[in-house]
Amino acid sequence: MDFENTVRKRRSIRKFTDQIFPEEQLMKAFELAVLAPNSSNIQTWDFHWVKSPEKKAKLVEACLSQSAARTASHLIVATADSSNWKRSQNPLIQWVRSVSAPKQVIAYYEKVVPFSYRSGFFNLLAPFKWIIFNSVGLFRPMMRKPVTARDIQEVAIKSCALACENFVLSITSLGGATCMMEGFDEVRVKRLLKLGRSSRVVMVIAVGYEGERGTWGPQFRLPLNEVVHQH
Amino acid sequence: MDFENTVRKRRSIRKFTDQIFPEEQLMKAFELAVLAPNSSNIQTWDFHWVKSPEKKAKLVEACLSQSAARTASHLIVATADSSNWKRSQNPLIQWVRSVSAPKQVIAYYEKVVPFSYRSGFFNLLAPFKWIIFNSVGLFRPMMRKPVTARDIQEVAIKSCALACENFVLSITSLGGATCMMEGFDEVRVKRLLKLGRSSRVVMVIAVGYEGERGTWGPQFRLPLNEVVHQH
Repeated sequence: MDFENTVRKRRSIRKFTDQIFPEEQLMKAFELAVLAPNSSNIQTWDFHWVKSPEKKAKLVEACLSQSAARTASHLIVATADSSNWKRSQNPLIQWVRSVSAPKQVIAYYEKVVPFSYRSGFFNLLAPFKWIIFNSVGLFRPMMRKPVTARDIQEVAIKSCALACENFVLSITSLGGATCMMEGFDEVRVKRLLKLGRSSRVVMVIAVGYEGERGTWGPQFRLPLNEVVHQH
Repeated sequence: MDFENTVRKRRSIRKFTDQIFPEEQLMKAFELAVLAPNSSNIQTWDFHWVKSPEKKAKLVEACLSQSAARTASHLIVATADSSNWKRSQNPLIQWVRSVSAPKQVIAYYEKVVPFSYRSGFFNLLAPFKWIIFNSVGLFRPMMRKPVTARDIQEVAIKSCALACENFVLSITSLGGATCMMEGFDEVRVKRLLKLGRSSRVVMVIAVGYEGERGTWGPQFRLPLNEVVHQH
């Protein structure tokens, strides 16, 4: 499908039909999802496709039994885990070597990333980082974050959201429909998927085909001049 | 451009040519950006298009003078401000009335949103919210967040990221190139744009046309089976 039509066609669909969205098309959407830009290309995202009927039923409950979850062909839990920098560190170092990137880029993955993605046990490193970043920042432009574990999570969550947007647009371009859900019980979702402490549930995405009264009506957005500001 | 090609063509470009990306196409990209799904449709995002040469020079510095910022035709600062729920509340109530949405939806925008988007002065409401959400959560599925001001910001940042992804894909589909930058001095950027306390800089987006050696080489991603998990 044409790009602009895909963006215009995508809506959050609250009710899906009984028709099952094909699994191979879902895989295609994952493939395009991970092509999203992301912080330092560290790919801190994960996508949990909950297929087992028992687990899916529990996930629907954890999504407060909302109709988008109840009627979906597939439910995908998108998570962000800042500790995933360890997963991609070596592959990234090999990759930057293979494309003969500047030496600083290799040093970046060897030293800067581990420094940035650690805040210490109980954020013990955070006060030191904060003092350094903000002292230097008095004299010259300086990144002030990430400092705390929460700051690092925020970076990971942002990247995961970018991939989720690619994902829902991909499903739309393949004729399907989606609903990004933030109405869920994070404690129950994490327990169900046995997710670690540093993992955060970014959203649960329902996938299917649009049913009758899948939306309440035409899309509403604020006028563009209220959100785009020229300086 | 075709959707899949757009996603595959988008790369983070670190060096742009001298050719200026047309302003009317930039406006088109903003138009598609705000069609992204977002939390409760509250549209907490803002896009600051820094056009004045003096301010743009300062913004380049605040972006640590990286080449993507230095060589860009346009620099856009994407921000998230959770207090923006006040901006969209009345228009949203009018909209849900006009599409005859269920009564609960009107109550949602009248009562639930103001309750969810407030954490009180110095997070004073947060402990009470936390106790309520987690006590109820012992017995039945329950949203555990947002509780603190930071939680509310996180929701706003996530929505803004979704719009940013639409934005960069739109620019790509129009033949342009982009670079999402997180390497910036948030304190200086906020001062430059006179942003309020509750506003957070989500990213700075550089827009232009891809220059020579705009990337180091082919795109690298982890194998899909390392990030997609079937349960």
